[in-house]
Amino acid sequence: DSTAHPELEARDFDAETQKSLEEIDSCQNEIEALNEQASEEILKVEQKFNQLRKPHFDKRAEIINKVPNFWPTAFNNHPDLSSLLEEGEEDCFHHLIKLDVEEFEDIKSGYRINFYFEENPYFENTVLTKEFQLGSLGVPTSLSIPIRWKEGMDLTQTNEPTCTRTGRKRQLDQRSFFAWYNDHIDPTSDTIAEIIKDDLWHNPLQYFLVPDVEVGNGVDD
Amino acid sequence: DSTAHPELEARDFDAETQKSLEEIDSCQNEIEALNEQASEEILKVEQKFNQLRKPHFDKRAEIINKVPNFWPTAFNNHPDLSSLLEEGEEDCFHHLIKLDVEEFEDIKSGYRINFYFEENPYFENTVLTKEFQLGSLGVPTSLSIPIRWKEGMDLTQTNEPTCTRTGRKRQLDQRSFFAWYNDHIDPTSDTIAEIIKDDLWHNPLQYFLVPDVEVGNGVDD
Ligand SMILES: [Ca+2]
Ligand SMILES: [Ca+2]
Ligand SMILES: [Mg+2]
Ligand SMILES: [Mg+2]
Repeated sequence: DSTAHPELEARDFDAETQKSLEEIDSCQNEIEALNEQASEEILKVEQKFNQLRKPHFDKRAEIINKVPNFWPTAFNNHPDLSSLLEEGEEDCFHHLIKLDVEEFEDIKSGYRINFYFEENPYFENTVLTKEFQLGSLGVPTSLSIPIRWKEGMDLTQTNEPTCTRTGRKRQLDQRSFFAWYNDHIDPTSDTIAEIIKDDLWHNPLQYFLVPDVEVGNGVDD
Repeated sequence: DSTAHPELEARDFDAETQKSLEEIDSCQNEIEALNEQASEEILKVEQKFNQLRKPHFDKRAEIINKVPNFWPTAFNNHPDLSSLLEEGEEDCFHHLIKLDVEEFEDIKSGYRINFYFEENPYFENTVLTKEFQLGSLGVPTSLSIPIRWKEGMDLTQTNEPTCTRTGRKRQLDQRSFFAWYNDHIDPTSDTIAEIIKDDLWHNPLQYFLVPDVEVGNGVDD
């Protein structure tokens, strides 16, 4: 029924218009129901392909594990990510042994970026995770596993303070990995997280290889 | 095969790393193939639901046809569209008898917004169409059916000149419907077209009804 449009009941349209508006409302309800059905079917397709992709991502992770410095190199070669790494962070990133992105089962509700580290001089954690989720009110939020810095090694203390500019500009200009990691001001437009999830994670090989593309033999095309 | 990464052949990695990189590349190819398959399945779902929605949109169009000034009212009530209509255009819009959005069969390739007019003092056209499509090089382009203005009635001559600011700001500030209609500078971020396609067309009833929501009896909630 048309309770979604209570204003339909309160208007002084002529009877014929009133009837038409109610019929339009009922068409809208049919369309809306189909929209919801479409979203559900698309979600199912995405879930199915996430499952189908998973063994390939798992196999890729195994192989990547055998390539020295794969993730630090790919990350540091990425045109939008390399400037993120401060000098101390770049050294810290040499201990990054694995990176992955987990989409939640109910894909719509969020994802998680995991950074796996070998034992290192900087912190006790073996995994640092930044997570994006829809909060209880449907509001996007992000959170990060707190970093247990070793004494005197807290890289957020040695780097310049977090830039306070807002939005995309803030994020692209933000010059420290750990400042980004700890920043939860505007999770709906976390450009760096999106680049990691949709680009770096998707095809890191191209970034691992990228320097030689530029230096490579100058075959003209 | 790995011709997508010719740089793999030119590098002096050790044999084991070289082998790993080739295996990563082959994983990437599997993932990429699955991505393409996923896109195709999602496109099919969208096409299916476009077909399922169509009779409801057609029925809605028939009923809307019986409501005087439905589209001019909905358009002019829309919070993001109303400021678009210059005074002359608002009068011209009283002759708008129908509006629809056609997505192309191959949805990815574009869509068309059609404005249908009854005979009017301004132009000869009965339909004005602004179309968005992927050009031959995959570059998004837009085009519009040229307006055959009646003598002395060209509303683009009487309104302020097209604003030259760029991007979203330009489009939201742009103060004339016909300036928007004729503007093809940046079809990838045509905010007004997107509002018409994704919001107004999707549920015009709420905008047709909106004034009474604001004026309505002050039941507290
Ligand atoms: Ca930096
Ligand atoms: Ca205006
Ligand atoms: Mg490559
Ligand atoms: Mg309503």
